[in-house]
Amino acid sequence: MRALTDTARRKDSVLVAGIDPVPSRFPKELRVLPEADATRQFCTGILEAVEHYAAAVKLQAAFFERLGPAGMGIYKDLIYAAKDLALPVVADVKRGDIGPVAAAYAEAHLGVYGATCVTVNPYMGEDAVLPFLEEARRQDQGGGVFVLVATSNPSASELQQSTDPPLFELAARLVAKLGESDGDYPDAGAVVGVTRPEIGARARDLLPEALFLAPGYGAQGGDTSGVRTLLDRQGGGVLVNSSRSILYAYEVSNTDYRRSAREAARRTRDELRTAGAHL
Amino acid sequence: MRALTDTARRKDSVLVAGIDPVPSRFPKELRVLPEADATRQFCTGILEAVEHYAAAVKLQAAFFERLGPAGMGIYKDLIYAAKDLALPVVADVKRGDIGPVAAAYAEAHLGVYGATCVTVNPYMGEDAVLPFLEEARRQDQGGGVFVLVATSNPSASELQQSTDPPLFELAARLVAKLGESDGDYPDAGAVVGVTRPEIGARARDLLPEALFLAPGYGAQGGDTSGVRTLLDRQGGGVLVNSSRSILYAYEVSNTDYRRSAREAARRTRDELRTAGAHL
Repeated sequence: MRALTDTARRKDSVLVAGIDPVPSRFPKELRVLPEADATRQFCTGILEAVEHYAAAVKLQAAFFERLGPAGMGIYKDLIYAAKDLALPVVADVKRGDIGPVAAAYAEAHLGVYGATCVTVNPYMGEDAVLPFLEEARRQDQGGGVFVLVATSNPSASELQQSTDPPLFELAARLVAKLGESDGDYPDAGAVVGVTRPEIGARARDLLPEALFLAPGYGAQGGDTSGVRTLLDRQGGGVLVNSSRSILYAYEVSNTDYRRSAREAARRTRDELRTAGAHL
Repeated sequence: MRALTDTARRKDSVLVAGIDPVPSRFPKELRVLPEADATRQFCTGILEAVEHYAAAVKLQAAFFERLGPAGMGIYKDLIYAAKDLALPVVADVKRGDIGPVAAAYAEAHLGVYGATCVTVNPYMGEDAVLPFLEEARRQDQGGGVFVLVATSNPSASELQQSTDPPLFELAARLVAKLGESDGDYPDAGAVVGVTRPEIGARARDLLPEALFLAPGYGAQGGDTSGVRTLLDRQGGGVLVNSSRSILYAYEVSNTDYRRSAREAARRTRDELRTAGAHL
C-alpha cells in the first residue's frame, strides 16, 4: 500500500476522492454534450480540482461500464491522467469471482487499465481474493486490494451482521490471513464504513494492522466520530472516501463545479486532519 | 425467466453453455492471432457449435474485460450474435454494489450490452440485488437475475457455510423475498453449485419455486447425481452450466474445436435429459 501511504503522508491527507460520474447531476453546460464526452470532461475537471487535497482517487467502474466500450476507454484514460498527477487510483470494481476468472479481472483492472488498487467482494471466499493480491504483487506498483468487510449501505447488515459469527468478522479474518506487508500496511486492506461505529470498532479489533478504506463519509451520513472508531492504535490506518459531497458540491454552492469540488475536498481534508486521522 | 424457459422447453435442454474464452487454451491456428481477434473468432465458432443443444449461453465478462475496451466491444457483439441465434444470454458479471452503482451496472449489462440475465453477488444485501431486478423488469426481455447463493468453488464454504444460520441460507431467503413471477419461475433465481449435494438440497428446500443456475458440472467434478438433488418437485427448476468441458473438448478429442464443442454440448444435453432434468 506504499503508493497510497506515500501520497497521504506527503499531503497530510487521508481523503480519497470518489469519482462517481452521474450525467444527470452534471452542471448544465455539460449536460448538453453526449454522455461520454460530458463524463470525460467532468471527471478530468474533478481530478484537477481534488489533486492537492486527496491522497488518492477512487473510480467507480459502474459509471464507465454503463457507457459501453467507449466508457471503458475513458476509464482507462482517467486512470492514466490521475497517475500523471501522482494520484494513486483505487478501481472500485467490487468484483467477486474465482480462480482464472478473478485473475482475468485482476489483470484487467490492475494491469490493462493500470489502477493501483482494487476493491474485491469476498462472498466466494479466499478463491475470490487471492488472485487479486497475486496480480497486485506482480504489478509491484505499491498497491493492493481492499476487501469488502462491513459496508456502509442501509441493507449491509442483512447478510454481514446477522449470523453467528457475523459474516463481516469472517471477511475480516480472511483479510488478516491473506495480507502481506510491504514494510508498512499489509497489501490486503478492508472496506469498513464509517456509519456503524460499533461494527467499525470490532473490525479494527480483528485487523489491528490493516489499512481501511472507509466509505459513508459526508453524503451517506458518516462523520469524524465514525472515523475515529476506525483508527488504529497510532491514530492511523484509515483512508476516508468521500464522493458525492465533493463531486456535486456545486449543486449547493452554485459556483463552478471544479471550484466547488476543490473547496469541498479541502474542507473534508481539513475536517479529517482535525479529527486526528493520518497515515 | 420466460426467455430461458421457452428455449429450454423448445430444445428439451437444460444446458447453459458457458463461454469463458482463455486465449492460451485456444487451438493453435487461433493462437497466432492478436488475442482480441482470436477471442472473437473462437467465441463465434462456439456459439454456432452449441446453438442446437443449449437453452442459453453464459458469457464470462472477466475474459472480455481483460482485453480492454475492445474486449467489451466483442462482448457486446457476441451478445447480439447469440440473440440472433435465438440464444438468451446470461451475463456472468457477479457484480455486487448498491443503489445507483448497482443500477448503473444493471443498465450496462441488461441495457447497453443487451444481456437477458445477469449474475449478482449479494454480500451487500438487498440494495445490491433489487436494482438489477428493477432493470430486468424495465427491459422486459423475459430475463432476470441469478443471485449467488451456494457456489461450487473449493473455498465457497469459508463464508457461505460456516455461520449460524449459514450465509447461503440468508442469500436464499433474499432471493425468495425479492423475486416476482412472470407466470412461470420468479425473476430472481439462484446460483447453486452441483458439487455439494447436501447444500443444494437445503437451497432447494428454501427456494421451492426458483430457477437455479447450477455451475460445477463436468470439469469442476459435478455430475448428474448432484443435479438431481437440485430439482424441484416437478423435476424442473434447474439450468446446468458447463463451460470448459465444452469449450476445450478439442484438447482431448484432437479434432476441430467447433466439432468437439458441438459433440460435447450434445453429449451433456443428453446426460442431463437422461437424468430427468427439464424445465
